Amino acid sequence: MYAIIGTWKMSFTGVSQAHEQLKQGGCAGDAVQHAVMCVEDEPSYTSVGYGGLPDHDGHVMTDAAYMDGNTLRFGAVMSAENIRNPICAARALCGRETNCLLAGRGAEQFAMQIGLPMRDMRTSEAMKQWREALQQENRKMDAYNEHDTVCVLALDENGSLIAGTSTSGLFMKEPGRVGDSPIVGSGFYADIRYGAAAATGLGEDIMRVCLSYEIVSLMRDGLSAQKACETAVQALSERKIQLGEDAGSISVIALSPKGEYGAATTLPVFPFTAGNDQGVAIYAARPVENGMEVKISSEAALADEP
Amino acid sequence: MYAIIGTWKMSFTGVSQAHEQLKQGGCAGDAVQHAVMCVEDEPSYTSVGYGGLPDHDGHVMTDAAYMDGNTLRFGAVMSAENIRNPICAARALCGRETNCLLAGRGAEQFAMQIGLPMRDMRTSEAMKQWREALQQENRKMDAYNEHDTVCVLALDENGSLIAGTSTSGLFMKEPGRVGDSPIVGSGFYADIRYGAAAATGLGEDIMRVCLSYEIVSLMRDGLSAQKACETAVQALSERKIQLGEDAGSISVIALSPKGEYGAATTLPVFPFTAGNDQGVAIYAARPVENGMEVKISSEAALADEP
Repeated sequence: MYAIIGTWKMSFTGVSQAHEQLKQGGCAGDAVQHAVMCVEDEPSYTSVGYGGLPDHDGHVMTDAAYMDGNTLRFGAVMSAENIRNPICAARALCGRETNCLLAGRGAEQFAMQIGLPMRDMRTSEAMKQWREALQQENRKMDAYNEHDTVCVLALDENGSLIAGTSTSGLFMKEPGRVGDSPIVGSGFYADIRYGAAAATGLGEDIMRVCLSYEIVSLMRDGLSAQKACETAVQALSERKIQLGEDAGSISVIALSPKGEYGAATTLPVFPFTAGNDQGVAIYAARPVENGMEVKISSEAALADEP
Repeated sequence: MYAIIGTWKMSFTGVSQAHEQLKQGGCAGDAVQHAVMCVEDEPSYTSVGYGGLPDHDGHVMTDAAYMDGNTLRFGAVMSAENIRNPICAARALCGRETNCLLAGRGAEQFAMQIGLPMRDMRTSEAMKQWREALQQENRKMDAYNEHDTVCVLALDENGSLIAGTSTSGLFMKEPGRVGDSPIVGSGFYADIRYGAAAATGLGEDIMRVCLSYEIVSLMRDGLSAQKACETAVQALSERKIQLGEDAGSISVIALSPKGEYGAATTLPVFPFTAGNDQGVAIYAARPVENGMEVKISSEAALADEP
């Protein structure tokens, strides 16, 4: 049995190729890395990797993480510049007993020392948007339009369960700002006994409730991947409303050790991609009256969604 | 009702003074900040703030966090140099809707912009130890001897529940290495509905299980602060042993919304300090056959402990 799930339509190409790898007996680690790299390398995706939108100072600063649900070990880089594929640096850090989470220049030095390709991650299009944004006063950051993390969870035939995330973070973020994507338990979590989960949306909100760890904990308590996603997202929304805030812009995915998917969102629609031995497709999760409607979606129905 | 608890004997001076502040109606936020600052400012404590032992490149890089259990908001700085009191930067970031977690130069710039005192955090004694360590080959890092985070949890008469942490991290860590201390859910967590918790020890292990969030979750499930600490630490140790590792060097503290303490450790003895309307004292937690023995300890009995 094998399964893979990734956030947003943008993960479709990579997830489809990774799905083929899994089908042919490939390992979940390679599948996750490949699927994430495809998004990192595509300049038209402005929230991940090359072509990502810069921070307030004009630097494209990336965060990425990789977790092995069989060992509970993870690696992550934060606020790192010029690493072509941050997911590769995160994976290379996974397994270390110490120094598995590296920030800034230290992360960049590590990537260079192990021979990972470096690259100026700024595209002319991203820098044009940055110059325009600098002209706009009182610009409010919007997690939905400008920040969507690629998260990929995969299970392989050998029972390996892996989570990976990568993002360039909020457009116009303050220098050094780190969101949930490289933060274990918030942006991602994987435990082969219970399942894996990952989150996308405003990282500052996701971190307040350790959203991915909470989803996996709910799976530990016996909830399905789908029910765990719905329950955790609803609890966060309700808590935010209790605190006098809006419900937030949060989307999550989960994968059980049996290969069952889950997804939930506070958005009108959250597209994601998923594949197993039944094939691979783009799905859409939509809040409905008594929970979440999750079904295969046509490209046309998602034309305006990332 | 008010209560305060801090990790290690080194927190005693600050916790005692903060306890007096709480007794006189001071707020938990000021109490936590004061108690942590006392440890940061004392050069003889080599794992926190001024006088902290440097990373492999000779830089003293600090991490700190501050969380408000009433709003679930937090602030944290990671891998930051030259901020005299990292806890003050973390507190200043708490409450922000975005950009509450800052790494590296961004964190330093933030501290300077809001007028926090900057300082060369290197003492001649710390640099002497660094030069000696550079000479030693195959030196193994030891979390117990060389890394103890100050964590302080406080509850005030107005029902405010605050968590704070500060550390200079592992001695000789790789540049950019970040441990659990600034990572929400791992090094600290606070939720006024259930309680607060914080952890000290090898951060890489603490992060694998989101230890502080797990303790607060167990309090949500109805466990006492003490039982939640014991249960979470035991689960982590057992999991590590299942994975073929040693039990690890982990110590935790917790505080319930009713002001009840909890502490647990995998060490032979873990000293901590705590105070409430019954007074303030140094305690020791020791693993015993059926759980954890926690009692007020004399200074003499802890002569060799940090």
